[in-house]
Amino acid sequence: MTVSRPSSTLAFLALLATAAPFPLPAQQPTIAAAYGDAAGRIYRAATGDSLAYTRLGLLVDTFGHRLSGSPSLEAAIDWILSEMSKDGLEKVRGEPVMVPRWVRGAESAVMVQPRSAPLRMLGLGGSVATPKNGITAPVLVVTSFDELAQRAAEAKGKIVLFDAPFSDYIVSRRIRTDGPSAAARAGALACLIRSIASVSIRSPHTGMLVYDSTVAKIPAAALSVEDAMMLHRFQDRGERVVVTLRMSANTHSDVPSRNVVAELVGREKPDEVVVLGGHIDSWDVGQGAMDDGGGSVAAWEAVHLLQRLGLRPRRTVRVVLWTNEENGGAGGRAYRDRHASELPSHVLAMESDNGAFNPKGYIFMGSDAAAGLVKEVAALLDSAGISGVQRVPESPAADITPLVALGIPGMELDNDGSRYFWYHHSDGDTLDKIDPKDLARCVAAMAVMAYVVADLPDPLPHTSSTAASGS
Amino acid sequence: MTVSRPSSTLAFLALLATAAPFPLPAQQPTIAAAYGDAAGRIYRAATGDSLAYTRLGLLVDTFGHRLSGSPSLEAAIDWILSEMSKDGLEKVRGEPVMVPRWVRGAESAVMVQPRSAPLRMLGLGGSVATPKNGITAPVLVVTSFDELAQRAAEAKGKIVLFDAPFSDYIVSRRIRTDGPSAAARAGALACLIRSIASVSIRSPHTGMLVYDSTVAKIPAAALSVEDAMMLHRFQDRGERVVVTLRMSANTHSDVPSRNVVAELVGREKPDEVVVLGGHIDSWDVGQGAMDDGGGSVAAWEAVHLLQRLGLRPRRTVRVVLWTNEENGGAGGRAYRDRHASELPSHVLAMESDNGAFNPKGYIFMGSDAAAGLVKEVAALLDSAGISGVQRVPESPAADITPLVALGIPGMELDNDGSRYFWYHHSDGDTLDKIDPKDLARCVAAMAVMAYVVADLPDPLPHTSSTAASGS
Repeated sequence: MTVSRPSSTLAFLALLATAAPFPLPAQQPTIAAAYGDAAGRIYRAATGDSLAYTRLGLLVDTFGHRLSGSPSLEAAIDWILSEMSKDGLEKVRGEPVMVPRWVRGAESAVMVQPRSAPLRMLGLGGSVATPKNGITAPVLVVTSFDELAQRAAEAKGKIVLFDAPFSDYIVSRRIRTDGPSAAARAGALACLIRSIASVSIRSPHTGMLVYDSTVAKIPAAALSVEDAMMLHRFQDRGERVVVTLRMSANTHSDVPSRNVVAELVGREKPDEVVVLGGHIDSWDVGQGAMDDGGGSVAAWEAVHLLQRLGLRPRRTVRVVLWTNEENGGAGGRAYRDRHASELPSHVLAMESDNGAFNPKGYIFMGSDAAAGLVKEVAALLDSAGISGVQRVPESPAADITPLVALGIPGMELDNDGSRYFWYHHSDGDTLDKIDPKDLARCVAAMAVMAYVVADLPDPLPHTSSTAASGS
Repeated sequence: MTVSRPSSTLAFLALLATAAPFPLPAQQPTIAAAYGDAAGRIYRAATGDSLAYTRLGLLVDTFGHRLSGSPSLEAAIDWILSEMSKDGLEKVRGEPVMVPRWVRGAESAVMVQPRSAPLRMLGLGGSVATPKNGITAPVLVVTSFDELAQRAAEAKGKIVLFDAPFSDYIVSRRIRTDGPSAAARAGALACLIRSIASVSIRSPHTGMLVYDSTVAKIPAAALSVEDAMMLHRFQDRGERVVVTLRMSANTHSDVPSRNVVAELVGREKPDEVVVLGGHIDSWDVGQGAMDDGGGSVAAWEAVHLLQRLGLRPRRTVRVVLWTNEENGGAGGRAYRDRHASELPSHVLAMESDNGAFNPKGYIFMGSDAAAGLVKEVAALLDSAGISGVQRVPESPAADITPLVALGIPGMELDNDGSRYFWYHHSDGDTLDKIDPKDLARCVAAMAVMAYVVADLPDPLPHTSSTAASGS
């Protein structure tokens, strides 16, 4: 597929008609006219090879998963910095960030009543350990916080299992983050959750928990969907379910990590910056290929592609591979703090953290004025099917949230999400889940947006901080 | 959905027109006229409750997986025999069968070069063990028997990995069954195969291997698709891959098991028999819910349903839950041998071993004459969408193969197979993969076919043994 722009008068008039409410001044060319050729070049170059996929494969196969605080994360960062320098990117550096170091250790869950059977589990990130011999206790299955509240008297001395079918990630995630402390408040000894997954082949899915400091920290783990459902069925049949949970997880002192930063310095306004990136850390399962090796490589290769094509925009384009998105968000905050003085001149913060699946457009948070311009830029990839702009009232991605909160327009790739929760935070997040063509299209989508926004005569307007902080 | 039959003259004429080439004699009513009401009653009753699903849940949750030779298989058989008697089925018995006893034991595979990482694996059924400290050797990845033959000189002293993408089960299965001995013939120390799976969340899939007695038996295991692809990528990049495989699998002496048999004795021709069944054994992973708890319960409940509805056909309807389908086929052979004298009076052998997913019809092997009648019976469920009859040149299911080879018409449910190889022989073969409505429709499909074929004025004709043995 190649990108071509309509050139007939009719199409031009149609474009003018839809460009409201923020048409450019009459003496300036439209975005379509000014950048159609560049967008086409970028799209063809990005999709003409499989460089990004080759690079992603090298990253995830060589270093494996990359949890904050792990040697593999730092080794991956060293390699990326070296590769970026070889690529000829500018101002390549690792910016120091202190990150948590949680180490899973040996862990297991075994059903001991009504029959003996191993359960598939993954401890939740940040969980405390069990005593050495584990916790053996009857299980109380609930489906929601409400049901736990109603049955709180039954929870004391038990292992509470939240068996909530997956529907909405926001809802399911709250059970994962807040469920353990809710269970502890009711006197539970440990907490299990049903993995957040839309398809399961008895594959547990981990993720972060957040302890409430006013109650005891109890160990918490995700069971595979299949195991959670089975325990629930036993309870429904009136059978007593007893489980032994063993976890040796340990939270150590914070350790140094780095945000990876590199640039294509702007030719006219080097102090104005378009940020684009992904997060380089992952959970300690699978390869972190989808979450978020793919997004990281897409952003990196987008900047590399502009450099290879000699497309140096007016403003600086800066790739940032944030560290510690998964279990802390320290990288996003550190970027904000270190670059505080530059942030008024940041014109866009864009992240790809939706799995590097086939992109269909962009998710955007910003003012109407900024959205109008962004839609015109997105329209450059209309014939490639990447033209949608979905506006959202909140920061569309975690690492850019500290920037969006300050009024900087925020953007994420809007990718096909149909398989995202098949693999998310599981051992199945591996290179083979990413299609080379999809990844190349992610590169194109990020490169076109970053290049044009960085090159427009005027910067994208910020939202007022007040509006942004209300999100 | 309910089943209704067309009653207008026009529909009747249309039916006559399509009933060729084997219309019943003019004085007999058509199958549609004679059995339309009964088929409707059966379909409505089968789909009017979730008895079959409840029973399947009890079976797989209470006993778990049921590998030949395991205590759980025999406990499940004891329970089924007891339940069948309580159901009021007739001549309930376990017919003795000696079965293999292969015990997996502890096992693991670890990549030790180019970096250290655990691999997800399942030993193949029947594999020998490795030495206690495992086998540590470089890996040679091939994609086919042909490539192994071409690179045989490189295989000596290595672990051969077959990384063949899944397309056709017959092709992929041959790599699983014959790959280990082919690798041994080339001097390999062990054999790995890429799991046979159409979707993977790093879930290995086991299955039977077949050693060639003329070469050394080497240990063999299935890697997850993801791991096989990763090792292949390392090889493609020119990196040396070394793996340590540890398996403590053990083949013990054969032990007693049983085929579960129960009947609804025919009211006129009790010695003529329609057999329908599934296999009660499973692999030693997951719950064996799809393969083949669902088929077993569908057949059992089909006969139970006829009994509950008071539909006693002319001939005997016999449910058989074969043992040892997965790793030997001893149950199917034992049934043939024990019932040898009755087999000339067996009119149909039907098995459900396609996962108890939504049935769309039947797969059939038999003569044109038999197929003509079977199509008329299948048409009774036309309005329920279960009317297709797909003819095949070979036995459509493993346990009935010894019967089909003798000329007995053979049949299997033709179910939606789109997800079968997501879960097949893996830890993901659990109750939640079966939809209660689909299972109820499988019950209906088996019950209608069994009832009508057992009640027709004349038996389905056998094929000649010569024709069948050529399949």
